Amino acid sequence: MSCLSHIWGAVMNPLSCVSCLSTFQPQRGLYTCPKCGPLLGTLEVQVPCDSLKGTIRRSDFRKRDSLFQFRTLLPVQSHTPVDQAVGGTPLLSFKGVLGLETLLIKNDGMSLSASYKDRASVVAMNLAIEGGYDTIYCASTGNAASSLAILTAHSPLNTVIFVPETIPRGKLAQLQAAGAQVYLISGSYDEAFDLSMQIGMAKGWYCRNSAVNPYLLEGKKTAAYEILVQNDYEVPDFCLVGVGDGTVVSSLIKGFEEFRQLGLVDRVPTVIGVQAEGASTLKKVFESGEPYTPLRETVSTVADSISVGYPRDVIKACCYMARSGGCFTAVADQDIIWAMSEMTRTTGVFAEPAGAAPFAALHSLIRQGLIHREDAVVLVVTGSGLKDPRAIESGIDIKSHRPKDLMDSLLGA
Amino acid sequence: MSCLSHIWGAVMNPLSCVSCLSTFQPQRGLYTCPKCGPLLGTLEVQVPCDSLKGTIRRSDFRKRDSLFQFRTLLPVQSHTPVDQAVGGTPLLSFKGVLGLETLLIKNDGMSLSASYKDRASVVAMNLAIEGGYDTIYCASTGNAASSLAILTAHSPLNTVIFVPETIPRGKLAQLQAAGAQVYLISGSYDEAFDLSMQIGMAKGWYCRNSAVNPYLLEGKKTAAYEILVQNDYEVPDFCLVGVGDGTVVSSLIKGFEEFRQLGLVDRVPTVIGVQAEGASTLKKVFESGEPYTPLRETVSTVADSISVGYPRDVIKACCYMARSGGCFTAVADQDIIWAMSEMTRTTGVFAEPAGAAPFAALHSLIRQGLIHREDAVVLVVTGSGLKDPRAIESGIDIKSHRPKDLMDSLLGA
Repeated sequence: MSCLSHIWGAVMNPLSCVSCLSTFQPQRGLYTCPKCGPLLGTLEVQVPCDSLKGTIRRSDFRKRDSLFQFRTLLPVQSHTPVDQAVGGTPLLSFKGVLGLETLLIKNDGMSLSASYKDRASVVAMNLAIEGGYDTIYCASTGNAASSLAILTAHSPLNTVIFVPETIPRGKLAQLQAAGAQVYLISGSYDEAFDLSMQIGMAKGWYCRNSAVNPYLLEGKKTAAYEILVQNDYEVPDFCLVGVGDGTVVSSLIKGFEEFRQLGLVDRVPTVIGVQAEGASTLKKVFESGEPYTPLRETVSTVADSISVGYPRDVIKACCYMARSGGCFTAVADQDIIWAMSEMTRTTGVFAEPAGAAPFAALHSLIRQGLIHREDAVVLVVTGSGLKDPRAIESGIDIKSHRPKDLMDSLLGA
Repeated sequence: MSCLSHIWGAVMNPLSCVSCLSTFQPQRGLYTCPKCGPLLGTLEVQVPCDSLKGTIRRSDFRKRDSLFQFRTLLPVQSHTPVDQAVGGTPLLSFKGVLGLETLLIKNDGMSLSASYKDRASVVAMNLAIEGGYDTIYCASTGNAASSLAILTAHSPLNTVIFVPETIPRGKLAQLQAAGAQVYLISGSYDEAFDLSMQIGMAKGWYCRNSAVNPYLLEGKKTAAYEILVQNDYEVPDFCLVGVGDGTVVSSLIKGFEEFRQLGLVDRVPTVIGVQAEGASTLKKVFESGEPYTPLRETVSTVADSISVGYPRDVIKACCYMARSGGCFTAVADQDIIWAMSEMTRTTGVFAEPAGAAPFAALHSLIRQGLIHREDAVVLVVTGSGLKDPRAIESGIDIKSHRPKDLMDSLLGA
């Protein structure tokens, strides 16, 4: 707290609007462009890579460490002990899976709350502490809420979570155990989101809503940094990740580009955003071309973490994707369920449906001849399968054995 | 495989029986002392710390790395890519929790399969590969099975799991997804265990049953090494861990003692083994004194991972505990459930019941005046709360709000 308690974060990099390109100095309560509004006017943090070039070296970074090892590229410092448990998730390297010479898996299911969201929450929490806030809030159906509640449990902050009443009991139990103030809303996730913004802004609480707070991306981008550091700065050809509202895909593109701008690598991977066929709004907006126009649809998919019909970071995601030369693709629910099992069977990485979707997409792109066996591919797993094992439980088909019968069967009567 | 395929492991340290102290050279198929039998005659690996002293330095080790960074102290080398995801779990340091100046939490819920068992499975898997085995097996009710299935998924090994038919569907789904051959046994865990030994030995498969295979302890002991490395070689006063059959507590004592024998630290923590009141067989055997006599009881506790009525590593656990000056304690189920919530609320670490039991015991020992606020304490969390959130779901008491009502209530009508 101390001397930092009355300013907005320790690093005052300017913010720019992804739509009108206006530039703003950070100030308390400024989350989105006042001219373009929340949906069109998401802001991005301009990191001065050109002036930092040469001052940051490959040898500055370790393969397994908290994301605060990248503190010179982050908008905030570490203020709580749990910060040490965010970042540094393993990058695993397999040969022969799906016929590829090299398949890399970045496993963020091994983060503290078992999802990628920890990278965003840890930045938001520390900014709220530096800003002298007493309360932080978010609306969520799952991973963002549990991440924020878990990370802030030991912090000086009060944590308020708005969730639709349909949230599974297990996730609700985890939120309550973490001591968060949980408001169950009789309505949809979108209603919970809108309500959270009205109440949170009126109360002056710190906002940890994806696609509203531009600093969340600064935490998430560290996954891209880590992929490069952990792969000895060899740049993969393709990076596939599940995407709902657009923030994760933007964060990876930003992270890869910053390391290139810093001269740490000389090219970036092609990023492919993977959606579910039943929830592919972002893909539709992107493929309709410029000017990108936000869309609101009714969606349905087994992959709850990317079940988003009203993507709130749509402009940034489409602009970044166009600039980087990547694309969006969509996979069927049955292929996601297949991928949950097949990825576990061939790699041991057990992912939630949204985390397994990139494996399904990779399988499809290889069959279509768009990705080849010699291409180096990294899949980003954004959540642990222990969060939602229901999707594959229905596939169980196994009968019981009496001990004597099994002895006879396996060893001969 | 190669040149190692016909010997038993790459390192040929002798084995000694914990009961008769006879020494054996490692050989294929030797798991327990032929003279004393499986229950009394568990073997231990004699690491030549005296001759290694001076060759191993503090600076050899990193704070976050795979457990194979300790390869000079392990009986096996790394042969599969997932080895990189075992070990290196964070050690978190809190001030003020339960009134303590320093509380450390070693969070093995952040391992690949979300439990401490990965440390044992990774050693067994690699020994089986080095030994040229085609199949590895274990009996288990949960964490050991999922750990072995997940870790071996990408390996050349076939994996056979024997589980009682009462296993929860979610855990069964995870085992099947990992491609293991799962045999559901209509009988108790003890029956599944005995059956696995008969079939596994007859088939010549590699055995990954706790308290039978002495090399499992060599993997588990690395948690103690990591605690010391991550705490900058400052030795905690107390180390509390949940214990069922006795292997985990033995592994920590062995790891701490080896680092002392190597001259890396000059003392060891007092280790306290935490049991559930409804499953405290090991505590009873220990407190009855020498000669330690195995006991078989009917037990019941919410902490399924330490619900053991016939501890199979009882002699080793009692001998090690007596030598180290530690003790066993037991906590009530209601206190374990309280600890699951309270540890999450104060630290953000969400543990399964067996992983939260040490927090409950610590609370009790502080109230009894046996542990003081200035004592440095480390709790070892052996499994993630996502493995079994049912225990705290019953405590949910929260009602839904209509959006307008909540607005009125929080912001004024």
